[in-house]
Amino acid sequence: MSSSAPYMLGVDIGTTSTKTMVFTLDGKVVAQHAEEYPVLCTEPGMAEQDPEQIVAAALASIAGAVKAAKAAPQEIALLSFSAAMHSVIALDADNRLLSNSITWGDIRASVWAERIKHEHDGNAIYRRTGTPIHPMSPLCKLMWMRHEKPEVFHQAARFVGIKEYLLYQLFGQWVVDHSIASATGMFNLRELAWDQGALELLGVRAEQLPTPVPTTHRLPALSPEMAQRLGLSVDTPFIIGANDGVLSNLGVNAIEIGHVAVTIGTSGAMRTVIDEPLTDPHGRLFCYALTEKHWVVGGPVNNGGNIFRWVRDELATAEAAAAREEGVDPYEALTRIAEKVRPGAEGLLFHPFMAGERAPLWNADLRGSFFGLALHHGKHHMIRAALEGVIFNLYSILPALEELVGPTKRMMATGGFARSALWRQMMADIFNREVVVPESVESSCLGAAVLGAWALGLLPSLSVISGMVGSTNHHAPEAEAVAVYGRLQPIFAAIPAKLEAEYHAIAAFQRATGKQH
Amino acid sequence: MSSSAPYMLGVDIGTTSTKTMVFTLDGKVVAQHAEEYPVLCTEPGMAEQDPEQIVAAALASIAGAVKAAKAAPQEIALLSFSAAMHSVIALDADNRLLSNSITWGDIRASVWAERIKHEHDGNAIYRRTGTPIHPMSPLCKLMWMRHEKPEVFHQAARFVGIKEYLLYQLFGQWVVDHSIASATGMFNLRELAWDQGALELLGVRAEQLPTPVPTTHRLPALSPEMAQRLGLSVDTPFIIGANDGVLSNLGVNAIEIGHVAVTIGTSGAMRTVIDEPLTDPHGRLFCYALTEKHWVVGGPVNNGGNIFRWVRDELATAEAAAAREEGVDPYEALTRIAEKVRPGAEGLLFHPFMAGERAPLWNADLRGSFFGLALHHGKHHMIRAALEGVIFNLYSILPALEELVGPTKRMMATGGFARSALWRQMMADIFNREVVVPESVESSCLGAAVLGAWALGLLPSLSVISGMVGSTNHHAPEAEAVAVYGRLQPIFAAIPAKLEAEYHAIAAFQRATGKQH
Repeated sequence: MSSSAPYMLGVDIGTTSTKTMVFTLDGKVVAQHAEEYPVLCTEPGMAEQDPEQIVAAALASIAGAVKAAKAAPQEIALLSFSAAMHSVIALDADNRLLSNSITWGDIRASVWAERIKHEHDGNAIYRRTGTPIHPMSPLCKLMWMRHEKPEVFHQAARFVGIKEYLLYQLFGQWVVDHSIASATGMFNLRELAWDQGALELLGVRAEQLPTPVPTTHRLPALSPEMAQRLGLSVDTPFIIGANDGVLSNLGVNAIEIGHVAVTIGTSGAMRTVIDEPLTDPHGRLFCYALTEKHWVVGGPVNNGGNIFRWVRDELATAEAAAAREEGVDPYEALTRIAEKVRPGAEGLLFHPFMAGERAPLWNADLRGSFFGLALHHGKHHMIRAALEGVIFNLYSILPALEELVGPTKRMMATGGFARSALWRQMMADIFNREVVVPESVESSCLGAAVLGAWALGLLPSLSVISGMVGSTNHHAPEAEAVAVYGRLQPIFAAIPAKLEAEYHAIAAFQRATGKQH
Repeated sequence: MSSSAPYMLGVDIGTTSTKTMVFTLDGKVVAQHAEEYPVLCTEPGMAEQDPEQIVAAALASIAGAVKAAKAAPQEIALLSFSAAMHSVIALDADNRLLSNSITWGDIRASVWAERIKHEHDGNAIYRRTGTPIHPMSPLCKLMWMRHEKPEVFHQAARFVGIKEYLLYQLFGQWVVDHSIASATGMFNLRELAWDQGALELLGVRAEQLPTPVPTTHRLPALSPEMAQRLGLSVDTPFIIGANDGVLSNLGVNAIEIGHVAVTIGTSGAMRTVIDEPLTDPHGRLFCYALTEKHWVVGGPVNNGGNIFRWVRDELATAEAAAAREEGVDPYEALTRIAEKVRPGAEGLLFHPFMAGERAPLWNADLRGSFFGLALHHGKHHMIRAALEGVIFNLYSILPALEELVGPTKRMMATGGFARSALWRQMMADIFNREVVVPESVESSCLGAAVLGAWALGLLPSLSVISGMVGSTNHHAPEAEAVAVYGRLQPIFAAIPAKLEAEYHAIAAFQRATGKQH
């Protein structure tokens, strides 16, 4: 390796695809290659993926990106990994698969999450591990597996996540970075080691889990065969990297105290960086490692782009079809419809909990609602209310976040929704804060590459990323809209607080009558 | 007059039109004629009508029906009147109009209704007068007029309703039937006289109000000019009749103990007949006179056909347009869409309070909502949920009604919705009772005519109406749907009970931002 090698690679192992981006050392995109794979669902609440399919896709993605960049092996200064959190794979003593990769979206462990929360002092476990007690977490998934798939659980010699499984195929080591580990619900944030209490609850031994290493950990050399397959050299440095959420914050340059990144992709999240692990007394926020001196606190939401898709496909079907016929992006058409309605949708609220919700309420039984319907409301009001509802919900994470880490100085908006001026302005108005949109494309890939380059001493500090990320749009809050949203927000927040029993009842009805998503 | 005259006329002075029906003495329809008029609305909450326009329409309607029946004056055995309740007109000492007719739908007296309820022992007034304390009632409207239109109130020598105003034009008498009087909120049901307490609260003297008379009261002779104009004789007997609600019960043969009539027109109601005045300790039900031995207890709802119209015009716009293009009635198309969704709309609830609500909650600030939305729901679920919500709401009146008057033996469904087999079955399933649909067309007109004929001794009892009203459809509850609705109904009922503060807040927001209906 030579520091004169001009390229760094970031690989992001996501839930729909693995994407590899080739950057110059000052952050310019040179090439990229993505490979997709499906989520498997054959029973209610299930969301699995085939680990072999993901390994194949990841290798093809790296090789494809190197090829697309027309880069010689010695031109690659490093490769570093981002990956989705919370996955679990069971393996036997010969490292053969006993299960698929059970992804974050799998909620079959719901009942076990409730039991851990209420019968096993879940809050104490959360306070040590930083992962809210929720069916998404490997902690709850292993509890579920032990009781509902005992034949798999007891045969398993080892439990890992998808990133660790890939790394083993590449390097023959069972290691896990502190960042992925910190999102398992079984990792003690202050000890930087597996949490004894969590392991005892599960009946799992630390030897059954991969060895935790810092996110700057350098992996061993590739085999010559693998290096050739990927278009790399056996000397190409590999850095283990972190999870996709914390790397996304790095990738949009939201790593200073008081800088908050809000992302809306299919789902969404609000995250900020602090310099030591901190947890929320009420269990509403996660705390995941980026490095030993950078921790990311925040809340994930289930309901983001999926709500816009539902509006497009189910509520505004005809409007979307008309837009397509005219060659207009249906989302653009819906935005134009929403634009004609005043902020506050003339007193119509939408609670976007169509997929249950994580932060800040952490209740998988929450459901969506339109509230305040009067005869003067039409579908255009419903469309605007849906957009506003997604932002109201994200906003409701902020008080918990500020309580824990102090005031927000700057907000970065990222994800698909940040492309729309209407939505950006809506966010500035609902949050009553200036919103900045970074120019980043694939922030987790960029974050991974920069973390890797810093680990190798090729960059002086993580802050150099500020020079790589431009900002394309600034939106200042508008007083009139701020006043309207300020009046509606308490009503928005009060409703779910009062209807806990009704959410559980309607969700139970939906489960019993055979529809659950 | 001669009992051998073959025809009886029922005139119904409604809110959208006056309709006159010509029947044979055994109830067969011979001819009819309707004349329409508008509702005037130039400020939020207002709903007025021009009394002169209604008088002209009523006269044209009677003359038109007589002409359509090709009946000679001596062939008319009698004419009797039905009319909408709750209207108020202010007149000066020379019987000149000082105001329009302020109709039941006018809610500008909302604040005054609240004050009467909470500051003037509204429940005691209700227990004496049988009219729930609500902006619809003349009691609340006069309180509003006294404080917000004092120049009109203090100049007024007389306050009457639209029926009384018409009768004065025809007969020169200021009389009001016990039935219309019993819906003013100022009439003592047990004394059959204006209520002293109510009048004192308003600062109105009994002399300012028309003289109460039984619903069987025979009016004086027409002038020769008026008789000629209407195509009648000066000897044609006129019976004053009653209000449209109680006459509708008579007109569908729901006058036996335990027979409950459910109507859904623009709005809706559930009513049953008892033999003495009774009021509800909780103020949820009205009690209006039909005769001195027949009283009608029940609850009115604001949200019926108006909800179906909203679904057609605002939610399912494209589906309705497609139906029209194919020459299909849009409501029929919506019914077909709803039919394909299972009972319970896969766990989606709709609260139909888009126009606030009267029975059983009596809260003008209630608003509509969809609750329980999950990603598997589409617009077809929303359509079915809207239909079910209207019936769930009507059903919620039943417990109060049965508490007061005993168990329901038989249910009659009437109004536009009763034409749809889907809706009738939905009602049978939600009510878990057999539903019978009478063959009646204009039940208030038929009720008025039969009451008049009985008053004149041309019919031996009101029960003869059973021979006039066939029943076209019987729907028995289906066990599986009954179980589903039985599980959803408590969730439906619990939600508004918990959100009182939020309904008030969102309604206040809507008023403040200028949209109110």
